[in-house]
Amino acid sequence: MAAPLRIAVAGVGNNISALLQGIHLYRQMAATDSAVPLPGVTRPVIDGIGVGDVDIVAAFDVNPEKVGEDLANSVFTEPNNYPRLDVSVPEQGVVVSQGLGAEGCDQRGVVRVIADSGAEVLLYSLPTGLQWAVDAYARAALSAGTGFVNCTPEVAARSPELRAEFERTGLPIVGDDLASHLGASVVHRALLQLCVERGITLDSSYQLNFGGNEDFRNLRDHGASKKQSKLNALAQGELPYGTVEIIPSAGHIVQLADRKVAVLNIKGRGWGGTPVSLDVKLEVQDSSNAAGVIIDLVRIAGACRRSGIGGFPLAASSCLKSPGVQPAISTGHDVATSAYDTGRLVEPRR
Amino acid sequence: MAAPLRIAVAGVGNNISALLQGIHLYRQMAATDSAVPLPGVTRPVIDGIGVGDVDIVAAFDVNPEKVGEDLANSVFTEPNNYPRLDVSVPEQGVVVSQGLGAEGCDQRGVVRVIADSGAEVLLYSLPTGLQWAVDAYARAALSAGTGFVNCTPEVAARSPELRAEFERTGLPIVGDDLASHLGASVVHRALLQLCVERGITLDSSYQLNFGGNEDFRNLRDHGASKKQSKLNALAQGELPYGTVEIIPSAGHIVQLADRKVAVLNIKGRGWGGTPVSLDVKLEVQDSSNAAGVIIDLVRIAGACRRSGIGGFPLAASSCLKSPGVQPAISTGHDVATSAYDTGRLVEPRR
Amino acid sequence: MAAPLRIAVAGVGNNISALLQGIHLYRQMAATDSAVPLPGVTRPVIDGIGVGDVDIVAAFDVNPEKVGEDLANSVFTEPNNYPRLDVSVPEQGVVVSQGLGAEGCDQRGVVRVIADSGAEVLLYSLPTGLQWAVDAYARAALSAGTGFVNCTPEVAARSPELRAEFERTGLPIVGDDLASHLGASVVHRALLQLCVERGITLDSSYQLNFGGNEDFRNLRDHGASKKQSKLNALAQGELPYGTVEIIPSAGHIVQLADRKVAVLNIKGRGWGGTPVSLDVKLEVQDSSNAAGVIIDLVRIAGACRRSGIGGFPLAASSCLKSPGVQPAISTGHDVATSAYDTGRLVEPRR
Amino acid sequence: MAAPLRIAVAGVGNNISALLQGIHLYRQMAATDSAVPLPGVTRPVIDGIGVGDVDIVAAFDVNPEKVGEDLANSVFTEPNNYPRLDVSVPEQGVVVSQGLGAEGCDQRGVVRVIADSGAEVLLYSLPTGLQWAVDAYARAALSAGTGFVNCTPEVAARSPELRAEFERTGLPIVGDDLASHLGASVVHRALLQLCVERGITLDSSYQLNFGGNEDFRNLRDHGASKKQSKLNALAQGELPYGTVEIIPSAGHIVQLADRKVAVLNIKGRGWGGTPVSLDVKLEVQDSSNAAGVIIDLVRIAGACRRSGIGGFPLAASSCLKSPGVQPAISTGHDVATSAYDTGRLVEPRR
Repeated sequence: MAAPLRIAVAGVGNNISALLQGIHLYRQMAATDSAVPLPGVTRPVIDGIGVGDVDIVAAFDVNPEKVGEDLANSVFTEPNNYPRLDVSVPEQGVVVSQGLGAEGCDQRGVVRVIADSGAEVLLYSLPTGLQWAVDAYARAALSAGTGFVNCTPEVAARSPELRAEFERTGLPIVGDDLASHLGASVVHRALLQLCVERGITLDSSYQLNFGGNEDFRNLRDHGASKKQSKLNALAQGELPYGTVEIIPSAGHIVQLADRKVAVLNIKGRGWGGTPVSLDVKLEVQDSSNAAGVIIDLVRIAGACRRSGIGGFPLAASSCLKSPGVQPAISTGHDVATSAYDTGRLVEPRR
Repeated sequence: MAAPLRIAVAGVGNNISALLQGIHLYRQMAATDSAVPLPGVTRPVIDGIGVGDVDIVAAFDVNPEKVGEDLANSVFTEPNNYPRLDVSVPEQGVVVSQGLGAEGCDQRGVVRVIADSGAEVLLYSLPTGLQWAVDAYARAALSAGTGFVNCTPEVAARSPELRAEFERTGLPIVGDDLASHLGASVVHRALLQLCVERGITLDSSYQLNFGGNEDFRNLRDHGASKKQSKLNALAQGELPYGTVEIIPSAGHIVQLADRKVAVLNIKGRGWGGTPVSLDVKLEVQDSSNAAGVIIDLVRIAGACRRSGIGGFPLAASSCLKSPGVQPAISTGHDVATSAYDTGRLVEPRR
Repeated sequence: MAAPLRIAVAGVGNNISALLQGIHLYRQMAATDSAVPLPGVTRPVIDGIGVGDVDIVAAFDVNPEKVGEDLANSVFTEPNNYPRLDVSVPEQGVVVSQGLGAEGCDQRGVVRVIADSGAEVLLYSLPTGLQWAVDAYARAALSAGTGFVNCTPEVAARSPELRAEFERTGLPIVGDDLASHLGASVVHRALLQLCVERGITLDSSYQLNFGGNEDFRNLRDHGASKKQSKLNALAQGELPYGTVEIIPSAGHIVQLADRKVAVLNIKGRGWGGTPVSLDVKLEVQDSSNAAGVIIDLVRIAGACRRSGIGGFPLAASSCLKSPGVQPAISTGHDVATSAYDTGRLVEPRR
Repeated sequence: MAAPLRIAVAGVGNNISALLQGIHLYRQMAATDSAVPLPGVTRPVIDGIGVGDVDIVAAFDVNPEKVGEDLANSVFTEPNNYPRLDVSVPEQGVVVSQGLGAEGCDQRGVVRVIADSGAEVLLYSLPTGLQWAVDAYARAALSAGTGFVNCTPEVAARSPELRAEFERTGLPIVGDDLASHLGASVVHRALLQLCVERGITLDSSYQLNFGGNEDFRNLRDHGASKKQSKLNALAQGELPYGTVEIIPSAGHIVQLADRKVAVLNIKGRGWGGTPVSLDVKLEVQDSSNAAGVIIDLVRIAGACRRSGIGGFPLAASSCLKSPGVQPAISTGHDVATSAYDTGRLVEPRR
């Protein structure tokens, strides 16, 4: 059993609410019955670090209602609307610090807070669209000597310069953009691949995503980077994706709160040219989808930093829409993982 | 280029209509532009036999409206309701013969017709539920010295005795039950596997199929063998399929004609135990789905007979719901195929 | 305020569980805040009788696990699987009696129990398909001097003889077959009417229902009366329903428990003959749907009996799939209601 | 039989393509068999004017590819993508004129073209969002002495000043915004009303619309007027529409061409507070939906002008999302119609 992993978080939104509550829920489940499979957990242990072995030791935000509060409270502050899980989250002894972009907050202060907390990894999870912020926090991670995980479609791990700097300092940089745990992209790709594999001639396909959290409001206007990132995700499987249209945020539907709905359609022709049609509706808890991937990415980043492996770890590819480096062959989950560590870091699922 | 494959067919229903029309359509397409990909065709060439290189040289049925007519007419006789494709099918010079079960038709007569036609493979495609007929036609194939392909869920290739006899005589026996080309089972399995792979705890799932051809009327009453066969199909991927309910024929909806609709639902829990829900509607041309698989199975059977390989060919596994022998490892299409012929018989898709 | 209505029930299935729990829930809600609208209640008060003013004073069943138990317990006995609502149901002081069809139970005994209980209405809610039981309980109601409500598609109120006898004795007979509160039939009819009203030429339509309670298992085999009843329901609006196919039980999906799912499709042609297509998925609590209608029917029956109005009350038409008498004009809910009582019995919704 | 109705059109987009082709198709159908019901036609004859009795005698557009061409060709010019119906449209002898907003085109010129053509009604059907253009063309109609029909959500018939001017000159003004013939609004309203009628407590509802014609590209940016107009349409039925979210253009999906898809969801609670859920997918030919309503509106406007009835005709209300005047009672289609003409102008559907 390895030591618990210490992480800092930039942005205290729904993703962090899901992550923090989930970690406590799984600790509780493990305490009562360790044989029960953990829902939504793909890899229970990575390099000796279990899902309950992650501690958030520092946090940054610019919302005045969140700053200065204990993390256990601020994850429930509006506009956060991730539901309360069936677990009580005790005060964490971690007060949310002023984040970059707010008045009176400079880069050096942020670096000091991260370093003082003993964090091994900095998790970047701010709203989509703030390229300057990703850059600034990535450099703060370099200065503080932590790994960096970018949850957003902004360019970080894909930047050759940035990746080179992390490589040089022996620090991991993981990104960009989370491949939802079970999201529209992964379902869409699986079905498109199935069609291609079966010799179906694709005529057209669309994917619309909508939901009620801030991300969907934000994406209506800043959807370009996200759309490209989603197309990248589909392209991993070498699909004829010119016929595919994707709308990352088709609407901000307040009533859905943190629920996300995706509507997919695939039209094609099979034997004799006769039509084939597939309609899918997927409904998930948006930030649960994110947290189920984040938990793997921070542990991969943590494991790399502990082993002194800098740059982009290939093992993270399958968890990302626009990975820093495309694996040589990508036939999905398993290959990408094995490309990383040939069995050393990632224990098989129970 | 190998010689064209000669096949006999037992049952002149929608499947044969789709097969015959499709073969002529693809010949036409190949004649005009050989570079155009053929819709619905997974493997353009198997052991030198293209999709247009299959000739139906004998046919059996018990419907008096079909018997005595040229095959090119009888495929359009009611209750057949597969649509007319955009190709003209010339008279075949093949008159439909009286099939087993009809008065004045004995096994020896059937064997003689098959043998006289020079058929290399006998394709069995009668309505579901007639175990005696599968047995009788399989023995006719043995006597006539042809390979045998069973499209129905009745037991043929799964019967150890029958398989042994085919093995002994160096004839292939392929079955049982077609895995639709792009059908509910294959989509359902892909999505369930995705959920399991992503750590989603499955709570429940259902699959309902309905359509307007005779098969759906018939299956309302004789659905037991079909249901087990469909569960076999899902089980190939080692799924927790106890939570899955399948209704092979939820209804005979005349208005759908040969169209088939499947409705799927998957419910589970992801990170933090939050709910995940997937709804799918798949609409396909039922007999096109069958023909897209039959074209591969008859060519695999033909290739085996020409090479003197008897018994059940593993290469056929991925095209079947209840294959005669389960491949050692089954991770889908590719492995099952390569297990057969390591590249000799199956050319890659263009 | 009228006196509470006393009813007897034949069959202690999910419908009675929903009815009993709902009545207690609404009493609780009324006690805390009388201004809150009651979910699922169309007419809060009928002839002075509120939804909380209904008492079940006698009950019959043949399940040995239910007979002899207090009603408050037997509603939760398997195979009942209606969920427990957020209300505690106290012991009712009503022990479930042996029902007709069980050994040692004769008609006279049943009549005596009903008469002794002071019931004003007998509610018949046994599984579909038992025509003999509907007849027997209807005659028991006549003998005991109570009104009669038939929840099933079996013939009772539609029988001219039976209706005449109830009319002669000044007792109401209400049936047949519940129009679900918000069920597939009512949604299907609304959408078909809309299409017709808008000049859409209907090409075809289907409706499939499936669920996990005993009714769906039962209906797979005894669906004929139900299917006709559902077509009757659609026909109330003079639709071109020859193109419509209905499957009352497309499958018994245990995992759905008392949930019911209906899948509808409508295909037609609009301006210029261009295609129009509508797909609907409706998911409801099956027995809640029943209880929301039963609460109206027993109060209408109760009000009629108190007023000495015998036979079939037109006011009940809109709550039934196959009403005893078709109202002269039927343009839905409002007309049917007003035909009954021109405002005296039915207070408007708050 | 009245004289054919002469109309001028501002904007030669998909709506006009659908209108022109449809008129010719119905003329053809009527010529071959007058007893066949016309698909998508709600009122075959209005005030003696049949659907085939409408002639387009003048047309305006600013697209240089359309201007100067015969109308029969310009309706097929890109970006128009309404399909070609199964009818040949002869040259109309009507050349598309330069429209307002283009250089070298002034209001007086437009008025002269309209007046010279003998048009009785001017149909405004430009892209959404051009308030100045609606104003200008409405004033051109006043000057030329024609009625005016506004297909867009821009304010015209709702403007008290404009309405008063039309009233004063005895000319009809009809608008604003077409209630699709069978569109998302009308289906959504029908289902919400059904829920309310049945006592379902609405928790939330959403409606997303997407499609592939120019309107959907345009609406992504200018959706505000459209959204309000769609909420107006729902509000006609006094619904608790605060819980309803509508996205007029959730995405511009090029592959859909002139097809429009709407996705609706309704969530509520029924008896006992148990959940009710409705999912709908509606797919229609967008401009057919428009043409099916336009054909009524221009005939109503024509009939009014011929009778000297100025201002907003109530009979048009049910065809509009934001009618100039709300009818006193609005229980849908029939009342609104009868409010207009008590049977004189509108013959019943065959």
